[in-house]
Amino acid sequence: MTIGGNSADVALRDRAAKVLPGGMYGHLSARLLPEGYPQFFAHGAGAELWDVDGNRYIDFMCAYGPNLFGYADPEIDAAYTAQLREGDTLTGPSPLIVELAEAMTSQVAHAEWAVFCKNGTDATTAAVMAARAATRKRTLLRARGAYHGAAPWCTPRDAGVAPGDRANQILYDYNDVASLEAAVQAAGDDLAAIIASPIGQPAFAPQTLPTPEYARAARDLATRAGAMLIVDEVRTGYRTTTGSVWDTLGAAPDMSAWGKVLANGHPLSALLGGPAARKGAEKIYVTGSFWFSAAPMAAALVVQKRVREGAYLTHIKAIGAALRTGLAERADRHGVGFAQTGPETMPLFLFDDDADFRAGFFWGSQMLRRGVYVHPWHNMFINAAMTEAHIERTLAAADEAFAALAAAQASLPPNAILAAPAG
Amino acid sequence: MTIGGNSADVALRDRAAKVLPGGMYGHLSARLLPEGYPQFFAHGAGAELWDVDGNRYIDFMCAYGPNLFGYADPEIDAAYTAQLREGDTLTGPSPLIVELAEAMTSQVAHAEWAVFCKNGTDATTAAVMAARAATRKRTLLRARGAYHGAAPWCTPRDAGVAPGDRANQILYDYNDVASLEAAVQAAGDDLAAIIASPIGQPAFAPQTLPTPEYARAARDLATRAGAMLIVDEVRTGYRTTTGSVWDTLGAAPDMSAWGKVLANGHPLSALLGGPAARKGAEKIYVTGSFWFSAAPMAAALVVQKRVREGAYLTHIKAIGAALRTGLAERADRHGVGFAQTGPETMPLFLFDDDADFRAGFFWGSQMLRRGVYVHPWHNMFINAAMTEAHIERTLAAADEAFAALAAAQASLPPNAILAAPAG
Repeated sequence: MTIGGNSADVALRDRAAKVLPGGMYGHLSARLLPEGYPQFFAHGAGAELWDVDGNRYIDFMCAYGPNLFGYADPEIDAAYTAQLREGDTLTGPSPLIVELAEAMTSQVAHAEWAVFCKNGTDATTAAVMAARAATRKRTLLRARGAYHGAAPWCTPRDAGVAPGDRANQILYDYNDVASLEAAVQAAGDDLAAIIASPIGQPAFAPQTLPTPEYARAARDLATRAGAMLIVDEVRTGYRTTTGSVWDTLGAAPDMSAWGKVLANGHPLSALLGGPAARKGAEKIYVTGSFWFSAAPMAAALVVQKRVREGAYLTHIKAIGAALRTGLAERADRHGVGFAQTGPETMPLFLFDDDADFRAGFFWGSQMLRRGVYVHPWHNMFINAAMTEAHIERTLAAADEAFAALAAAQASLPPNAILAAPAG
Repeated sequence: MTIGGNSADVALRDRAAKVLPGGMYGHLSARLLPEGYPQFFAHGAGAELWDVDGNRYIDFMCAYGPNLFGYADPEIDAAYTAQLREGDTLTGPSPLIVELAEAMTSQVAHAEWAVFCKNGTDATTAAVMAARAATRKRTLLRARGAYHGAAPWCTPRDAGVAPGDRANQILYDYNDVASLEAAVQAAGDDLAAIIASPIGQPAFAPQTLPTPEYARAARDLATRAGAMLIVDEVRTGYRTTTGSVWDTLGAAPDMSAWGKVLANGHPLSALLGGPAARKGAEKIYVTGSFWFSAAPMAAALVVQKRVREGAYLTHIKAIGAALRTGLAERADRHGVGFAQTGPETMPLFLFDDDADFRAGFFWGSQMLRRGVYVHPWHNMFINAAMTEAHIERTLAAADEAFAALAAAQASLPPNAILAAPAG
């Protein structure tokens, strides 16, 4: 299982350069990945992925999250296609929107109502709107470097953003109670909402698990200010718990935004909320041509059933733990400084003293060559289709890749692709 | 073919009231429709729609646009499901994104690049961002009452919108060159973009076809100010021409936003652009978890093939013309003042002297009862699965419904649902 050619990928990149901005836009652009990482993929099944040149990988990116139960899960996709034949995008919603709202509000402790949409950004944006409508206040607090989507109010790049898009926002430092308190004070009597990632997952930097003190401070500060606490579960949803992460920390949000895994790759996101936010959600006008489509909801009902049963979570935690332990042992054995952060089901791998990610890029390329797709600066995901055999193959590849890195590390050239840290 | 019960619909509404804001959110809420209009649907096939109580309708709403070739078109859905088995939402895009960008930029005269997304709002928002990035200016001109999506910068309701969200916007009157010129003057040297609907389609009011003078004025004013002209084809796309409407008026835009019909109901939207906007599109960061999913693109390639062939357009124009002529004759015969506006493939029906839509609501209810779903205040859509037989059945129903209205019109009570015009 070694990487073969990439001529099909190169030919497609040439065509793409003419008809797509920059050759590829958004988070799936391979521009900030090591040379040789494929841009285009042909096939996915279970835990594995095939690029357009026929190279096969164990895929730890899971489509940047949506793949929770494996690509093309037979039961989930059968539910999707059966509903497609029955009725998908119609002149009104199907009964499935009610069933799914009932299922999610039963599953997620703080939720009693749901709005379904398509992008994670739709859900976070609607949450902010509902908070402003509910409180009749304007100021939004969000953590520096946290990703809440790609709308003008939150996209990580400044280009095309007008100053008004980010008016009435105050940034604070994640997991830092004093910083959050200062931001709340700065908001005065205009605080509409605090939006927080349940787990600190900035790109290019270690992940941070929230302290219960921080989460509860956010909850208490919002309550005292008559503001809404919004938790952005788009990336984390159902990957570390079968509910909402901050519910388990004693910091139940007023609203939470969900996406990615909800229909295991079919397009669906959701805003969930509790009683304090309901009036706000009723007042705002948010909608989309495909928000009510029934087929993704049919798929999501299968996902909800599995979340309710919970066996998948035990499995991905065990798989993630085996991967973490095995990688740590092998990195140690080769004397490579290797840091794994975040939940075991959403690992991030960084190398010590690797500011321009040259070691990460080298190691990632070595893994890729051995049929394992890892990401050098973004958190990854474990899915329920991964087996011990996938982890064994991954660890065997890692053993060789660490050895190659140990031999090459002293002489690695600077990383031209990430010379200046992106952000 | 008469309407039966609605007990299943009523039961679902009761459940929905608990778990969905206001019982239903967004444009598919039945709250502003006549009593008896169903909220929930079970099935769609071709030109027809079944509600959850088994009532069957010829559907002139077409899911508010996406249905161009009929519900559950076999060839389109087969392409979708085949691609689903191959690979849909993966860790990178499939080659189909390149093929589809090539197909659309070949089809639409002003386009040389494409960004694919999910909501129409994604495309209009990205267009505004790209215009601001390209011009390094901020002011956006848009027509009063025109719908460009449901993000904070454009949603038709004020709730949840902060003043900053609409900073740097100037409104003008559609189809009014003097109003547009005044707005351009007010923008001074800060004009980033003019966004325009290709056809005036406000809710609750007659549709307006643009004069070529107006469209060309928008083009010229944008060019002279170094600004971008954006045309919002989300609703109109491929329904009156196989390209972009304003290309045919000699007012080629720099960018156009597309959605709804692109994959005949599967979730897909697109921003297309020409050379002047390319750098702007390269600079902005816009993305979404499902923007690169391959299955909707496979469906869209079938749609593009049919658009290229063009026979569908001849057909829907003939169907739309037969409907218009037949309705006008029957309304006249019954002495009912009935105004049909907009393109024949996107008709809007309004009754004379009907400020609170009481006649429209009555007539719509009469049509519904006879198995025809028409909308009393929003434009409708003709799809290619409609046949002469559907039109004959519709005209037979309309004949009876006009007769019933003529008999009842003098004594219709005020319309409680639209007592105050919505907006």
